[in-house]
Amino acid sequence: MRAAVWHGRGDIRVEEVEEARPGPGEVKVAVAWCGISGTDVHEYTAGPIMIPTSPHPLTGAAAPLAMGHELSGVVSEVGPGVEGLAVGDRLACDSSLHCGACAACQAGAQHRCEQGGYLGLSRPGAFAEAICVPAYACFKLPAELEISLGALVEPLSVGVHAMRRGGVEPGSRVAVIGGGPIGLGAVQAARAFGARETFLVEPVPQRRALGERFGAIGLDPSACDLGAAGHAPDVVIECAGHPTSGPLAVRMLRPGGRAVVVALHEAAAELSFNEILFGEKELVGSVGRVARTDFPTVIDLLGRGALDAEAMITRRIGLDEIVAQGFEAMRDDRANQVKILVDPSC
Amino acid sequence: MRAAVWHGRGDIRVEEVEEARPGPGEVKVAVAWCGISGTDVHEYTAGPIMIPTSPHPLTGAAAPLAMGHELSGVVSEVGPGVEGLAVGDRLACDSSLHCGACAACQAGAQHRCEQGGYLGLSRPGAFAEAICVPAYACFKLPAELEISLGALVEPLSVGVHAMRRGGVEPGSRVAVIGGGPIGLGAVQAARAFGARETFLVEPVPQRRALGERFGAIGLDPSACDLGAAGHAPDVVIECAGHPTSGPLAVRMLRPGGRAVVVALHEAAAELSFNEILFGEKELVGSVGRVARTDFPTVIDLLGRGALDAEAMITRRIGLDEIVAQGFEAMRDDRANQVKILVDPSC
Repeated sequence: MRAAVWHGRGDIRVEEVEEARPGPGEVKVAVAWCGISGTDVHEYTAGPIMIPTSPHPLTGAAAPLAMGHELSGVVSEVGPGVEGLAVGDRLACDSSLHCGACAACQAGAQHRCEQGGYLGLSRPGAFAEAICVPAYACFKLPAELEISLGALVEPLSVGVHAMRRGGVEPGSRVAVIGGGPIGLGAVQAARAFGARETFLVEPVPQRRALGERFGAIGLDPSACDLGAAGHAPDVVIECAGHPTSGPLAVRMLRPGGRAVVVALHEAAAELSFNEILFGEKELVGSVGRVARTDFPTVIDLLGRGALDAEAMITRRIGLDEIVAQGFEAMRDDRANQVKILVDPSC
Repeated sequence: MRAAVWHGRGDIRVEEVEEARPGPGEVKVAVAWCGISGTDVHEYTAGPIMIPTSPHPLTGAAAPLAMGHELSGVVSEVGPGVEGLAVGDRLACDSSLHCGACAACQAGAQHRCEQGGYLGLSRPGAFAEAICVPAYACFKLPAELEISLGALVEPLSVGVHAMRRGGVEPGSRVAVIGGGPIGLGAVQAARAFGARETFLVEPVPQRRALGERFGAIGLDPSACDLGAAGHAPDVVIECAGHPTSGPLAVRMLRPGGRAVVVALHEAAAELSFNEILFGEKELVGSVGRVARTDFPTVIDLLGRGALDAEAMITRRIGLDEIVAQGFEAMRDDRANQVKILVDPSC
């Protein structure tokens, strides 16, 4: 079958690869759509970051490796020992892989597995006609949900997990820093969790406008004083990863409020521990998602129209276009590209 | 009456001051004992820090001002409108003053009052034969509790509040950074809250030994790798305020754990937001105490012998000795002095 394979930084090739069979506890999925994530673009422009160059401790895989981890598709084969899934089932799949044995897994926090990996980063991914996926990572889509929207379940679930980590509830005032795909998903999740008011802090006008379409109040960080009273949200969701945005998240909060770190940060930053102290503020991490709870929530919200995945999709392309129209568009046109979906069958 | 009055940095004078009458909602308390706090010593060595040199927004008071805010005593006069308190009642008093009108007060977080002040810092304090105290700050001591121990209720309540902010519960593994009076109180509070194991990170051997007397495992930060696995506590209580101790608190935590900032920090510090992210760690502030819940808890624990206040008291002195035997001993002999109590009547 054909797949988009990471060979090295700046070197992704669409080529023929061997089609695997599902192992015990796995299903094979005919990929319908797979989104290009920010992580994927990072691997293309600056990798290897997460892609292993020697065998991954959990999966044993290493580059060259088919990428792609935000997928929807249809079950085409069921491996040994799998119950509750059948050929023809329409799925969204979580890419997180876990060992099941470490302290985090034992405590039910598989998303923080000490040996954890990801489909499309730690073993072959879904920029391919087919992919093998652990059954625990498979979530059925309702018949009425257009299957391409299933490829948005994973990125949207990151926002839902952040709402849960932040304790967002009806009446909350929420600020999201950073209007990339994750931040825009968080804006939508905030509305779905009942936020009374949602701010989006984002310098790029097009992204701010999309956030406003999702009900946020756009704030240009270069044009307003974000630390000023008046905003002082209950919860700040940090999705930018900019050196100033972690400390900004804490500074913006009302006393007693909670800042949630969702973005990866390239360096440490100066934090005022006194701001944490005097305001009894809270700073917490939210890494990925808890698929067993966050995936069903997102699928339910999509089914009820409470999340608008379609508005996040800025382009649909075939596998042959994945580099020029996909990775490079994401890299070069951040203002206009949010989520590019790839159909690996064409 | 006689009082120890702050006139300026390094200038505390025992002198005659006018004795006030309790205003509406206040009682007058004949001070039995008042402890010297770290804050008091800071005002002596480096003030004015909290002591106002122009009228305080809440109290209208300014230096020169009688200090002292960790007090026990006996009600000697009841002001207009006070219910539930009578002459002769034995009390521990909270020093926190609040406006009752700001957003924090309205939300029940009077300890974070935007205009808040403190007895002995923002209006006359308890290094004096008598002090007027709002009735809301008065908590009766059981008859069997030796009244000098009542002067420890306030500093011990800071540790209790930190346990609540940290979510310490039976079975928790807790590390306390810093073995000053607040940190040693936190060690005791951890045991009282059912911690399975409590570590005290403290370089001074005498303080470490006192922590060990309270059931902690002493760790010398210069002699062991605190970031190493094996400790990885559920909760870290940061009571040192050292430039490295905030980031250390986060680094030490197990994934999913919670660090509680109790100490004042003189400067911002470099924090790895990725450590917060990947471990889904939590960093929260704990400022002072919530008197209406934390004072009764401490009084109950003292009454049951679950907190050992007596072991924290390293010296009892009279008012005339307060500078040489009190403030200067606290400043110069940190290794051996924990809590010095002053009896203003002699």
